[in-house]
Amino acid sequence: MREKLTSDCVGIVEPQVQVFDSALELVCGRELPRFQLVYETYGELNATRSNALLVCHALSGHHHAAGYNSLEDRKPGWWDVCIGPGKPIDTNRFFVVSLNNLGGCHGSTGPTSIDPETGRIYGPDFPSITVRDWVTTQAMLADALGIPSWAVVIGGSLGGMQAMQWAIDIPHRIKHAVMIAAAPRLSAQNIAFNEIARQAILSDPEFHGGRYLEKGTNPTAGLMLARMLGHVTYQSDDGLRDKFGREVKSGDLSLGLDVEFQVESYLHYQGRSFSESFDANTYLLMTHALDYFDPAREHGDDLAAALSRAQCRFFAASFTTDWRFASARTREIVDALVVAGKDVVSVEIDCPHGHDAFLLPVPRYVDALTTYLRYAADLEESHEPAG
Amino acid sequence: MREKLTSDCVGIVEPQVQVFDSALELVCGRELPRFQLVYETYGELNATRSNALLVCHALSGHHHAAGYNSLEDRKPGWWDVCIGPGKPIDTNRFFVVSLNNLGGCHGSTGPTSIDPETGRIYGPDFPSITVRDWVTTQAMLADALGIPSWAVVIGGSLGGMQAMQWAIDIPHRIKHAVMIAAAPRLSAQNIAFNEIARQAILSDPEFHGGRYLEKGTNPTAGLMLARMLGHVTYQSDDGLRDKFGREVKSGDLSLGLDVEFQVESYLHYQGRSFSESFDANTYLLMTHALDYFDPAREHGDDLAAALSRAQCRFFAASFTTDWRFASARTREIVDALVVAGKDVVSVEIDCPHGHDAFLLPVPRYVDALTTYLRYAADLEESHEPAG
Repeated sequence: MREKLTSDCVGIVEPQVQVFDSALELVCGRELPRFQLVYETYGELNATRSNALLVCHALSGHHHAAGYNSLEDRKPGWWDVCIGPGKPIDTNRFFVVSLNNLGGCHGSTGPTSIDPETGRIYGPDFPSITVRDWVTTQAMLADALGIPSWAVVIGGSLGGMQAMQWAIDIPHRIKHAVMIAAAPRLSAQNIAFNEIARQAILSDPEFHGGRYLEKGTNPTAGLMLARMLGHVTYQSDDGLRDKFGREVKSGDLSLGLDVEFQVESYLHYQGRSFSESFDANTYLLMTHALDYFDPAREHGDDLAAALSRAQCRFFAASFTTDWRFASARTREIVDALVVAGKDVVSVEIDCPHGHDAFLLPVPRYVDALTTYLRYAADLEESHEPAG
Repeated sequence: MREKLTSDCVGIVEPQVQVFDSALELVCGRELPRFQLVYETYGELNATRSNALLVCHALSGHHHAAGYNSLEDRKPGWWDVCIGPGKPIDTNRFFVVSLNNLGGCHGSTGPTSIDPETGRIYGPDFPSITVRDWVTTQAMLADALGIPSWAVVIGGSLGGMQAMQWAIDIPHRIKHAVMIAAAPRLSAQNIAFNEIARQAILSDPEFHGGRYLEKGTNPTAGLMLARMLGHVTYQSDDGLRDKFGREVKSGDLSLGLDVEFQVESYLHYQGRSFSESFDANTYLLMTHALDYFDPAREHGDDLAAALSRAQCRFFAASFTTDWRFASARTREIVDALVVAGKDVVSVEIDCPHGHDAFLLPVPRYVDALTTYLRYAADLEESHEPAG
């Protein structure tokens, strides 16, 4: 079993919990009396505390981004491709912090937690969370860990949006914002797909208005549909064709009404396993946070104006076949940064993997990320006071 | 109320029913002891019976393609934009036949019909239907109407696939095949979207294994989801943006979990009205017919070989922003026709309306269709024996 612990793996990691006992006021106007965040760290914080890197997760992500939680784990963390000794997010250089966001279902306070004021599971009563709330709580985690400023805040998809919000909201505590496959805000099409996924959950009779845990049940069918839809839209037409073509499950077409094509049975598998591990209320909360994200909104729909407060450097990557967060959307961010006079490097990666590419070992992507983060690490080290 | 009956409208039309009392053997190997087809006609069959045009409908279509069934109807038939005196499908020149396909839910024999052998509603026991079965039954309807050969078989999307199958299966009875926004077969992505829509229906507890009618219920939520998904994918990202942008329903974002954005409430409306008028088993049947359509399959995946039997002329149109049946897919058809040495005219229409464009009055599309069908009518008239 130990052969999985290769020299470029962070090894066995243990999640940690940070409890915040004072009340937190949220953007929606409601308050959480207390909350906790679960997180993992990889690498070591240096003496000057200048090498901390925050990993922000996407819709269905969590804190376990690299390594293994035990030798029995079959799979490493979700971004193990990019995090480890010598990898793009090089744990020999960075102190990596990866958390489960507030509202999540992997150990941080969220809809599956007990509301201390009622003694009852929050469920649908958990307040709406925005990307801005995540930045606020991530900053509180930085305080707790003694991190004055992030060398880098990095994320793909919704994670990239958090990096952007960091640059806008707390400009003096972030040196580099790395946004991968992100967008300045969702399109109507994106919102529509999210809404269909939500409706799948809401219309599942096992949802019970969000009180499924208390009823001892789970809206499995709704979650399955939501995940299947996400899965298809996070991949490209070409990618699905290369993976499955029109292969049938066995032999010839049977013209029945059962699952026939490989792509169907693959989707069923993906949907099923997701529905067993993810909380439906968290899914609703996360997709709403995505829909609402729109930093330009408060600046007369002028993204450059919104980004003008930023003081960090930016790196933006997009993928040619990503049609949910298309390259054109990343260009909107880059163009706004240029107008705002910010320092930005951007790269468009030609690959067939659609939106999911940010999770995959696409060579040019890995190389570009490695180069930029090496530059960022060098830069922050050169700023360190001498010995 | 009469102002809707403009001079380019076919006016008030009455559906007719053709009953076929002998057994029909289907591609799946099963047999229907008897069946009926409901259809409408517009225009007049000429003396030489050479001006008949068959309209084939798409996934959720039916026989009522033009005009009104009564003066009280709020909306005309689904393709009224293209069918009428002086319109592209000019009823002054063509005798137009538009049917509800076998397996449909608008009056033709389908899952909602009574199985004469059991006296029970077919429901999920209705046999699998293929595009080839539709061509066979459409030919039987032509026989019943005394039409020796179609001047034109025309359709958009799944309707275009029927036109293609006509050209291959019964080459001596079709002069022109007009395929709009069609594809030689579905991609893995297309199959995946169909499968998600099917799962939405199948996992609705009101589906009752397809016996919802006997239970006095309807899988409304599943049908709604299926339609919402179809609706989003039949439009382009640009089209949705132009129509809705990120407009919220009322005032500012409320950060609640209710419907917020205009696009969401529009989708709910579309889904709701579809779920009240369409049969779930028919939806399953139609999407399976779409998935299975693959004329090249029997010819070693060589579409040109499949099309080599055709004797008709072809017209193919596609739309730049159609991403479910992209222009590249139409080009595959055109390329195969060229290889097969067939006469083909094709046009790609630049417009923002996605797949649904084939139903809309896009000027260049309407013009191109008008020109081709005028040419087809002229050609068939010139073949008529002199008075």
